[in-house]
Amino acid sequence: MPAKKMKVQKMPLNVSIIGVTGYTGLELVRVLLTHPDVHIKYLTSRQHEDSTIGDIHPHLQGYGGLRITNTDPQTVAQDSDVVFLALPHKTAQDVVADIYGLTRIIDLSADYRLDDTATYKQYYGLNHHHPELLAKAIYGAPEFHRDAIKNADLVANPGCFALLAQLMLYPFQNTISRADIFAITGSSGAGKSASDGTHHPVRNHNIKSYNINKHRHIPEIIRTAGLKADALNFVPSSGPFTRGIFMQAFITPAKPAPYNSDTFYQGEPFIRMVDTVALANVIGSNFCDLSYSAGHGEQIIVQGALDNLVKGAAGCAVQNMNIMFGLQEETGLKNLSPVYP
Amino acid sequence: MPAKKMKVQKMPLNVSIIGVTGYTGLELVRVLLTHPDVHIKYLTSRQHEDSTIGDIHPHLQGYGGLRITNTDPQTVAQDSDVVFLALPHKTAQDVVADIYGLTRIIDLSADYRLDDTATYKQYYGLNHHHPELLAKAIYGAPEFHRDAIKNADLVANPGCFALLAQLMLYPFQNTISRADIFAITGSSGAGKSASDGTHHPVRNHNIKSYNINKHRHIPEIIRTAGLKADALNFVPSSGPFTRGIFMQAFITPAKPAPYNSDTFYQGEPFIRMVDTVALANVIGSNFCDLSYSAGHGEQIIVQGALDNLVKGAAGCAVQNMNIMFGLQEETGLKNLSPVYP
Amino acid sequence: MPAKKMKVQKMPLNVSIIGVTGYTGLELVRVLLTHPDVHIKYLTSRQHEDSTIGDIHPHLQGYGGLRITNTDPQTVAQDSDVVFLALPHKTAQDVVADIYGLTRIIDLSADYRLDDTATYKQYYGLNHHHPELLAKAIYGAPEFHRDAIKNADLVANPGCFALLAQLMLYPFQNTISRADIFAITGSSGAGKSASDGTHHPVRNHNIKSYNINKHRHIPEIIRTAGLKADALNFVPSSGPFTRGIFMQAFITPAKPAPYNSDTFYQGEPFIRMVDTVALANVIGSNFCDLSYSAGHGEQIIVQGALDNLVKGAAGCAVQNMNIMFGLQEETGLKNLSPVYP
Amino acid sequence: MPAKKMKVQKMPLNVSIIGVTGYTGLELVRVLLTHPDVHIKYLTSRQHEDSTIGDIHPHLQGYGGLRITNTDPQTVAQDSDVVFLALPHKTAQDVVADIYGLTRIIDLSADYRLDDTATYKQYYGLNHHHPELLAKAIYGAPEFHRDAIKNADLVANPGCFALLAQLMLYPFQNTISRADIFAITGSSGAGKSASDGTHHPVRNHNIKSYNINKHRHIPEIIRTAGLKADALNFVPSSGPFTRGIFMQAFITPAKPAPYNSDTFYQGEPFIRMVDTVALANVIGSNFCDLSYSAGHGEQIIVQGALDNLVKGAAGCAVQNMNIMFGLQEETGLKNLSPVYP
Repeated sequence: MPAKKMKVQKMPLNVSIIGVTGYTGLELVRVLLTHPDVHIKYLTSRQHEDSTIGDIHPHLQGYGGLRITNTDPQTVAQDSDVVFLALPHKTAQDVVADIYGLTRIIDLSADYRLDDTATYKQYYGLNHHHPELLAKAIYGAPEFHRDAIKNADLVANPGCFALLAQLMLYPFQNTISRADIFAITGSSGAGKSASDGTHHPVRNHNIKSYNINKHRHIPEIIRTAGLKADALNFVPSSGPFTRGIFMQAFITPAKPAPYNSDTFYQGEPFIRMVDTVALANVIGSNFCDLSYSAGHGEQIIVQGALDNLVKGAAGCAVQNMNIMFGLQEETGLKNLSPVYP
Repeated sequence: MPAKKMKVQKMPLNVSIIGVTGYTGLELVRVLLTHPDVHIKYLTSRQHEDSTIGDIHPHLQGYGGLRITNTDPQTVAQDSDVVFLALPHKTAQDVVADIYGLTRIIDLSADYRLDDTATYKQYYGLNHHHPELLAKAIYGAPEFHRDAIKNADLVANPGCFALLAQLMLYPFQNTISRADIFAITGSSGAGKSASDGTHHPVRNHNIKSYNINKHRHIPEIIRTAGLKADALNFVPSSGPFTRGIFMQAFITPAKPAPYNSDTFYQGEPFIRMVDTVALANVIGSNFCDLSYSAGHGEQIIVQGALDNLVKGAAGCAVQNMNIMFGLQEETGLKNLSPVYP
Repeated sequence: MPAKKMKVQKMPLNVSIIGVTGYTGLELVRVLLTHPDVHIKYLTSRQHEDSTIGDIHPHLQGYGGLRITNTDPQTVAQDSDVVFLALPHKTAQDVVADIYGLTRIIDLSADYRLDDTATYKQYYGLNHHHPELLAKAIYGAPEFHRDAIKNADLVANPGCFALLAQLMLYPFQNTISRADIFAITGSSGAGKSASDGTHHPVRNHNIKSYNINKHRHIPEIIRTAGLKADALNFVPSSGPFTRGIFMQAFITPAKPAPYNSDTFYQGEPFIRMVDTVALANVIGSNFCDLSYSAGHGEQIIVQGALDNLVKGAAGCAVQNMNIMFGLQEETGLKNLSPVYP
Repeated sequence: MPAKKMKVQKMPLNVSIIGVTGYTGLELVRVLLTHPDVHIKYLTSRQHEDSTIGDIHPHLQGYGGLRITNTDPQTVAQDSDVVFLALPHKTAQDVVADIYGLTRIIDLSADYRLDDTATYKQYYGLNHHHPELLAKAIYGAPEFHRDAIKNADLVANPGCFALLAQLMLYPFQNTISRADIFAITGSSGAGKSASDGTHHPVRNHNIKSYNINKHRHIPEIIRTAGLKADALNFVPSSGPFTRGIFMQAFITPAKPAPYNSDTFYQGEPFIRMVDTVALANVIGSNFCDLSYSAGHGEQIIVQGALDNLVKGAAGCAVQNMNIMFGLQEETGLKNLSPVYP
């Protein structure tokens, strides 16, 4: 792999998406369509071979040249400078193994996010087939691992809840006695397949929590924040809207934080410190809005919001791509301004 | 059956629901729970035997005595003064045949709404198994067939779109040259099972038409309005809300209508002639709101709204029950005032 | 006043509402309309004199006899067994003083909820004009003050956020080291007047917090829960729905609670202990749903939901009325089953 | 003016917006921010002088250089290649007169859309102050007036309802006996100021028509379609969503249409002929989706959808700018792909 990285990268990048028909793959298409340094090489799907992207996602009619194929992953990899995997976990881990070394990979599944196979098994109920690759994967939170991402061959894109929680807690890393988090997500987070939990009559005008203290994104959060497992209460909830996550954290500090949270993210292109976090202010964009304030009794009140499909998935993945290929981080992302109202 | 009808009816009525777990059965429970002359005898379901109603529909926890059984329909019928069937079409028609003569029946499925088996086959794709019962079924639109309903043994409750369209067109019956109707319905109309069309991300913030000029409720509409099949354009659409139907009709008259539409429904307990129809004004109630105005060029502009689960299903069924048993028609229904805002 | 209370109360009660045109007054009408022991005597409004209720609230057309007058409060009081005040705070306190002693009063404003004038001034920015009446007012949380309410001449109905928070915390009263609460409310909580915060484009698809640790309902909460002011963080937020409040509390206990939270509310007609709180399950009803679970690290995770206009306002007020007049507490309230979906 | 047009235009264009704080001005900023050939010169507002755009519209924090001034219109005009006016009607007409001849103008108000002052007075209730400029204004529907727009000094951007209706009817121009249209719009169409009609509790879960056959966009529609005033019924309605218009037309033809509606818009960059129009498929984009089908009885069923703030306002205005300056029409617009789900 080193060879690939050392040579001067020709632009535009040849970029492919394996598994393009879910909401994550779809959002990758939306983001990459307007990226100035990207040539979309392959969009693949097993189910929808020989369709155009407009056949599967009618709102994308009018972007005609985008044809879906069932090209095998190795061919895709050989012809691409970078490949995004928008596959379900378990499926993704084997495809990564098949193409590792042939191209640079950004995996949007959960398969390479965790360090050890035991935690993976605990949360996902599966044995990991490729533990040797876990050590090679870089966790793709740009704000924490920019340097490692630069040279990575395999980037594991963070979970949507996980990234937001980490961004909220990171200025206090290793100084937190306890964090109590309530999070509320839109229905697009559940993916493209209909289910009881996303049945419109059930979801509309409703709020309901699920998987309290059992959500799969928890190990990502505690690792970054330097929390013991039982120092976190994490209450994920479903909300009556399509896109976005709003999160409320009450932090009990153990000692003074090493950083000033107000200035901690200064210079970060997609983190906005705001007076009042409002979910609608980030929809459609790669921004993550954060606010910190002193609560009563030494507690710190932290709020955050991001679009789960953009900064929580496809946008973050493209931000990682930009870092990997030495592009300005905002490229193809800052132009996606929030669609408000 | 005559014997049953002639004897003086003891109150409260023993009332049962066969098929209580869908949204229609559920709404019947809500309405019957507060009906002063009703004793709920059986609530049956094949799938959920031995649950309470609160197990299946958690919002009904606290109404404890309601247990679901899998009692066979004939036993249910023998022990009940009236039985509501809230089953899918095709299933319903055989159950009706099994219990016809044992009790009085209000069928909320489509199976006994149409007069002839050919039309039934055309719209539902099935041979009707019990054509002999079709002639005995009374179409349960209280505003048009009150007298026949009084003595009916089998009432076929109208379709939700169908009832609203009929109420809008009926003052102009047999005088309409053409009716062009656009209708928009909430997601609860699609029932309790999740589907692609009711997936929250798809339904939220969306409007989309389906089955244009092919919807199954069309034959009910044209029969009542005295329309030739090709004098109606009916455009059903899905809207981004849970309950209710809003309907817009443009009527081209063939000759002056025999009735004054403003006073036509005077005295009807659940028809309100209003200046401006607003969907939210009927939600949760058995009201149907209507407005008539003169359009340009002799056209008549008619708008209407009802709650598809109440006046479009369970409420109308209970109104029919009230008529069948000589109760005041408002009983147990007028108390369900619209829940606004 | 004692005379009034000792005599045997004739039914139906003569009941009046002063200030009937806001959402609270409106919801009182909806609840009282179907209350079997109530005769509505006066509905008053300064602005809408001589309208019917259907003129102001078109969804109530068809409930014709209800005429709005501008009858003076003293006449209203003299002719009524009980008077509900659905007026803004500040206005309400003087009307209460005008009619105190002439009838029994249930005040839905904030004016008589707090014990002392200093706290009132701190949170509402006003001097209280009638401190002598504060001592006579009973705080109308039925679950905590049932006996006092029975004999009260003046009941101060709780704030919507406040009642829910109190119900969630009360089983742990005086044993709480800290409570961190995130609450999210529907737009009807802001009342009937349009404002920037309830402009549909702003509110739809949005979540935003406001008045963190400054909300006016805070003193009600800390008093009942036995909390020091700085042991509570209270984060009220606006949500993209019309009715209801969903609330999440993280409780840090100081010592073992004196009560078993699972059984604490046993026998309470409107408190339901549920496995999973879902906002949609209480809408339109007087239920408050609660769940308690052990979190990590000794924390207790409490969730609750109620309809802000019913259990959070009009329903609770009628529950208080039932208690005051020796009626079954469920009367006219249990029939309002949740409207779901 | 000819001089300005003849010289070779230097890129980027200096572009200004007068009146930047409403939803239309705001959306112009969103579109222009990513337009590759645009330099934003002035954003002006009387009320918000010296704010940044992020102060007024917090979702635009992070696009820092955009400062709002109260620069006088003539200075703005002199320094700009093109000026967008996003002002209320009546205000706009005088500002246009002030700067006419100093720059090229795209007016998003209604003031220069109509040909004659009598119709203007009839629909807007005002005398037009500058009738001499009416003749010079070009109606900015790109699909109908492309050539005239190219050389225009003053373009009157169409109304949102009006443009959609015209696009739906235009293939049948001068062959329509009657058109009956039902239209439903999101709340952003009402602008940024809170009002009773956009109060969230009123708008959520509601549909209600208004200004039937009186809407101000009607004269634009009938002129383009070649309809007599009383051959159109136009029923505008408010829907429970923020962005977008969905429109249903029933067309009664007088004679065969001169064009094939399926191919009529071939080559148009922003018109998509689709099988099924779905509102959600156009949100955030400059697309207008259309479907035509044969109804019963010679009727033609036409459906259409667009985003009222993009194709119905800011996007169309930028499309006009592209035409006026010889740019590819898609520039800065096709990159705004629909944000779905």
